[in-house]
Amino acid sequence: MAKGNLLYAQSGGVTAVINASAAGVIETARKKGVRVLAARNGIIGALREDLIDTTKESTAAIAALRRTPGGAFGSCRYKLKSIETSRAQYERLIEVFKAHDIRWFLYNGGNDSADTALKISQIGKALGYPIATIGVPKTVDNDLAVTDCCPGFGSVAKYTAISVQEASLDVESMCESSTKVFVIEVMGRHAGWIAAAAGLAARKAGEPPHVILFPEIAFDEDRFLARVKATVERVGYCTVVVSEGVRNAAGQFLAEAGTRDAFGHTQLGGAAPVIAQLVKSKLGYKYHWALPDYLQRSARHLASKVDAEQAYAVGKAAVEYAMKGQNAVMPVIVRTSDTPYRWKIESAPLEKIANHEKKLPPSYITKDGYGITAAARKYLGPLIRGEDPPKYGKDGIPDYVRLKNVRLKKKLPKYSIEDK
Amino acid sequence: MAKGNLLYAQSGGVTAVINASAAGVIETARKKGVRVLAARNGIIGALREDLIDTTKESTAAIAALRRTPGGAFGSCRYKLKSIETSRAQYERLIEVFKAHDIRWFLYNGGNDSADTALKISQIGKALGYPIATIGVPKTVDNDLAVTDCCPGFGSVAKYTAISVQEASLDVESMCESSTKVFVIEVMGRHAGWIAAAAGLAARKAGEPPHVILFPEIAFDEDRFLARVKATVERVGYCTVVVSEGVRNAAGQFLAEAGTRDAFGHTQLGGAAPVIAQLVKSKLGYKYHWALPDYLQRSARHLASKVDAEQAYAVGKAAVEYAMKGQNAVMPVIVRTSDTPYRWKIESAPLEKIANHEKKLPPSYITKDGYGITAAARKYLGPLIRGEDPPKYGKDGIPDYVRLKNVRLKKKLPKYSIEDK
Repeated sequence: MAKGNLLYAQSGGVTAVINASAAGVIETARKKGVRVLAARNGIIGALREDLIDTTKESTAAIAALRRTPGGAFGSCRYKLKSIETSRAQYERLIEVFKAHDIRWFLYNGGNDSADTALKISQIGKALGYPIATIGVPKTVDNDLAVTDCCPGFGSVAKYTAISVQEASLDVESMCESSTKVFVIEVMGRHAGWIAAAAGLAARKAGEPPHVILFPEIAFDEDRFLARVKATVERVGYCTVVVSEGVRNAAGQFLAEAGTRDAFGHTQLGGAAPVIAQLVKSKLGYKYHWALPDYLQRSARHLASKVDAEQAYAVGKAAVEYAMKGQNAVMPVIVRTSDTPYRWKIESAPLEKIANHEKKLPPSYITKDGYGITAAARKYLGPLIRGEDPPKYGKDGIPDYVRLKNVRLKKKLPKYSIEDK
Repeated sequence: MAKGNLLYAQSGGVTAVINASAAGVIETARKKGVRVLAARNGIIGALREDLIDTTKESTAAIAALRRTPGGAFGSCRYKLKSIETSRAQYERLIEVFKAHDIRWFLYNGGNDSADTALKISQIGKALGYPIATIGVPKTVDNDLAVTDCCPGFGSVAKYTAISVQEASLDVESMCESSTKVFVIEVMGRHAGWIAAAAGLAARKAGEPPHVILFPEIAFDEDRFLARVKATVERVGYCTVVVSEGVRNAAGQFLAEAGTRDAFGHTQLGGAAPVIAQLVKSKLGYKYHWALPDYLQRSARHLASKVDAEQAYAVGKAAVEYAMKGQNAVMPVIVRTSDTPYRWKIESAPLEKIANHEKKLPPSYITKDGYGITAAARKYLGPLIRGEDPPKYGKDGIPDYVRLKNVRLKKKLPKYSIEDK
């Protein structure tokens, strides 16, 4: 067995299943006799030499990670700049790796993280300390290239579809004398993957959601209002899903276009209230709106089984690839069959993934711009299948694990990321 | 067996388990050979003679009601005025009851519905058509008198506690370099029952939520900001639960006090963004906020087992009381033991419930005004215990039932509720 330690770090917005990937990494490494260190708060911890010794965690604790949301070691929003502008940061990373005999670096994140992992691999070689870097895919945005889907997406998709289904049953019950239009805002600043998944709530034509507002389609106020009015007149109510990334014809985010607070500041983070107010002022319908925000991406209680399994599998594969001497790759999900849904894990070069972005195909949006097509259902449907509930305590609350996160003794001079 | 039909109607805001009460009513009545009619959209359907024949629904459909959110027959926000001002409406109800041989009226709702049921009982007697009325308790607000708790509340409490737990794990993961303050707004215009339930997310002292803003406590900006700052400095982040009913010292709802849209209209329904903006402008912390709105009261996928059982039990008991000749009563939940938690159903006079309101006891709120006490935990804890998940389809979506809702033929002249 190769000598040395493996460093695992979580990056970017966390998901309901990123810890399942961590469990896949650690359990697989343990079987192979490899010690896993984890960086506290992602790459920030690697720079600061703030490292966790995962061998101090029990078998049960690591197993429980598989069903715990959030990022157990801490994640970060911190992007390394290019090697040209921030060479010192990359060199610092290599110093930390050397000091702790880190031979493999597994970076669990999205596009930016794939790029960082690629660069670290390159600079390591240049500095005479070859470090094998493997990306582990993760993002609720589902926008990574090459992989068929991204761990984290299936669970937010399932949460969103079920929330739309449940809230619509509520609104339908009350619409005769109360709320007629319900607006729910979902994540997706750049692409409408989550908005599209909301469409899975409708098992039959005509079921809610009645209108989906995609970031891919410029918002047309008159046409939208006509659609809402027609829906209310036909079925008594209207459920609208709006992506946070929806823009008007001028390219402004709806969430920032209309509303200001009492001090004149733009009111941030709310396409849903803008849409709801518009419906009220132009059509007079009573409305309610919801903005689940972090609830959607942390709802481990409602995780998709397929998603949880894939998240674990990419963590496991990453360790296997590392042990086989692969470098600058990412385990990706390959769909081998739609019906029955089958998938496998394959190795793909980070170069093909870093800085690419997978867009929602136009063929997934219906011609009217407000719904999803059969092609979208075929792709999205399998990703929300199966339930994988957490273990609940007797008190009715999930028994999510909190790790001890025992730190390694530092060997290097202190390093401040703020100075760089 | 007494001759005649039983009319069941749902009233007010629906819950994740009001249909469990409907299942309790219908299954119990079927065993006793009593035909159940249901009013479409609550009392509005009774006035309009818009009645559903539940005998047309299969055994399986009624069983599935037990795990379906929303109101299967439609509910309403429509309050009958006093007998003095709206005598004609009460008389119309009696006419409808006579026309369809309705001998028992079961009204599933909150305070107002208990009052309506009581009045119907009285006018029936006065008009020589004695109608036995039974209230069936229901409200996420948990504000009904006499009963220890209200069906619907335990499930929204569980949803809220778990959502706070999950989202806090997310925020905690990211706080080093991203969001430091997370604000979640919960229902409760008049009382902080749901806000208090959020406190159950904290199993140990110091765990989130760190601050609960109750409608019972006037909002003190400076003290709140100091608390948030101290929490962020101590643990790195701060989870704030804000009740939609929180008011400032002047008695204004926070949701209406600060924010106006581009047209100068008050921005409705958002204490969370007001709090979040305040934190940003005064403390500079990055924030996120969530407003689950109807998601919280329709989340049948996360129902409390205790709540679902109690909802069914009050429906069952209501039919039993009706068949025993009781009138103007409501089955209420009596807590017979805290540890282990035990409860039973008893009959209580509607007079003691109508127009009363159960407030959150001051002893449930900690002295600093931001948390819940041991007494609150003792009361609230049992109500969220146990899971009772719906049946999921192979597609990963719950198999909620949609009834056929076959209408009875009308026998009376048309009646418009708008004219009255």
